[in-house]
Amino acid sequence: MRTIDWDVDTDGNVSIALIDQTLLPGETTMRHDSSVADLIVDIKRLAVRGAPALGVAGAFGVALALHESADLDTAKHIIKELREARPTAVNLAWGVDQACSVLDQGFDAVLAKAKQVRDDDIAASAHMASAGADLLERLLPAKREHGFRLMTICNTGSLAAVEGGTALGVIREIHHRGLLKEAIACETRPLFQGARLTAWELEQMGAPYKTIVDSAANFLLSLGDIDAVLVGADRIAANGDTANKVGTFSLSLGAKYAGIPFIVVAPESTIDLETKSGSDIEIEDRGTDEVVVVNGVRVSPEQTQSINPAFDVTPSKQISYIVTDERVIDLAQGATPADQDRVPAS
Amino acid sequence: MRTIDWDVDTDGNVSIALIDQTLLPGETTMRHDSSVADLIVDIKRLAVRGAPALGVAGAFGVALALHESADLDTAKHIIKELREARPTAVNLAWGVDQACSVLDQGFDAVLAKAKQVRDDDIAASAHMASAGADLLERLLPAKREHGFRLMTICNTGSLAAVEGGTALGVIREIHHRGLLKEAIACETRPLFQGARLTAWELEQMGAPYKTIVDSAANFLLSLGDIDAVLVGADRIAANGDTANKVGTFSLSLGAKYAGIPFIVVAPESTIDLETKSGSDIEIEDRGTDEVVVVNGVRVSPEQTQSINPAFDVTPSKQISYIVTDERVIDLAQGATPADQDRVPAS
Repeated sequence: MRTIDWDVDTDGNVSIALIDQTLLPGETTMRHDSSVADLIVDIKRLAVRGAPALGVAGAFGVALALHESADLDTAKHIIKELREARPTAVNLAWGVDQACSVLDQGFDAVLAKAKQVRDDDIAASAHMASAGADLLERLLPAKREHGFRLMTICNTGSLAAVEGGTALGVIREIHHRGLLKEAIACETRPLFQGARLTAWELEQMGAPYKTIVDSAANFLLSLGDIDAVLVGADRIAANGDTANKVGTFSLSLGAKYAGIPFIVVAPESTIDLETKSGSDIEIEDRGTDEVVVVNGVRVSPEQTQSINPAFDVTPSKQISYIVTDERVIDLAQGATPADQDRVPAS
Repeated sequence: MRTIDWDVDTDGNVSIALIDQTLLPGETTMRHDSSVADLIVDIKRLAVRGAPALGVAGAFGVALALHESADLDTAKHIIKELREARPTAVNLAWGVDQACSVLDQGFDAVLAKAKQVRDDDIAASAHMASAGADLLERLLPAKREHGFRLMTICNTGSLAAVEGGTALGVIREIHHRGLLKEAIACETRPLFQGARLTAWELEQMGAPYKTIVDSAANFLLSLGDIDAVLVGADRIAANGDTANKVGTFSLSLGAKYAGIPFIVVAPESTIDLETKSGSDIEIEDRGTDEVVVVNGVRVSPEQTQSINPAFDVTPSKQISYIVTDERVIDLAQGATPADQDRVPAS
């Protein structure tokens, strides 16, 4: 089952089909968005989330806009709204732009382009999984005997992409190689993507794992028996500064304290060379309610206000490597995403 | 209203009265524990929690044991169970031991000693608040103009003591001096003591504050507009290593990254010279359910297991100062709690 795909039912009705991730792990329900307005709502409420999946949502969304509106100006207006539905993740805008590059060739060309974005994403996940696992085996050869204990945050697996994923894709590959001792999934407040989605995916793949509250992560790292931290990314600046789920920067401090690799796994489409550094990245604040209302229960007094950044920025100096579908960027050795002479990933 | 106290009602019934902190901020309900068995249940389920309050609970608990059992051996057996109700917090055992020091003098002497522990705790809170606020004003004189922005975790206010508290007591004192720009309360998963109890206390005192998810703390610190991190302690080893609510160690990494003071506030009774260093501190693991069941809703798959340390250990090298009711220990300058020549707190 793909997280997101283009769908035409037996009556010829067109929609974007996506797993409603807000209902996992309790229910596995497919949504069929037949308008871009519906898709935008689903993006904003995180029914579909994860940088690579948002790229595919953006590309298919352009096709859907053309399908629902005969008038190109109207379609362009809808597309602009879609492009701006979430400000931090660059992949959404990137996916929209990919599809728009053939907008003047009409619906069929746009849909073909969007399907290409989808297929490229599936291939990218496979490349990253392999390259990331190779990197871990090369960095920590002694761990091949007893297995790797790997920490991650948020959900960066199949649910964050079309199939496969980024950081969790690497963990799955390590598991498939018979080298996973244990995955440690940070629960990822406020929306519990780790506790809900990553735990669900690890359970599905039969991998050994445990969940923790986010604030326990750095203490566990300090105890010295976790081998690496693997995270995804929502936007990577030209200098390597990386925006990702809030809590990522904190893990980079714990990894550095423990002296273990801190590895960002993301497709090339997450790199935004137009963004020079992390200070240029707009961080989405998702408001008080997500923090103070937990599973329908208000935990704080009525008047309590919260600061709720959905993402944070990890400076490049805190990152050991960025693994993409095309290359491994050795930040510790001074490489940056902007380097022209790319080193192949594997 | 005191968090915990000795109570004799109009019919002469004896009990330990305590605010049920599991019901806050929704309900303010007093419990009246008339047996040590009930008190132990309330300690284990965190109806009463916070290192200083547990010390007072321990002392009053010894009096209650003598009251409910005429046989001294039976009373001693009950007292031993009480002393071990929570393994990490040293204050509980300390409070028990204080009252037991006059056990052979009978109930009246024990109750008088327990009331002394209570009164000493109230006085200690006042001293720490004053000493901590003085320290902040001395360290950061420029902040007196625009006010301090102070971060804390868990609940270390009146609810954690009899009256006053430790780290939150300092924040209250800064507020009373008109110097608090904003308090930032980490929500403190898994039991939300920050979101529930600290937010409630800050609201009651009319202080400006916001809550955050724990994983956002270090990112906010890295942005550079928080002036200090203040935390409590459940046990301080002779070398200064400090056990406190899980997430405390992580904040110490963020404070060091930001170059701001990381200050532990705790009464002398929290210092355990018998414990040489943090590696000698037993860390209570409170099991999977607290992590995966949130407000009655299971967030993870049925089979999911969690690692759930209630506390972590912050090495002394990560701590700037320890403020007690008797002295300010300048760890950054190489002082330790074991030093004989104590510097007065103020």
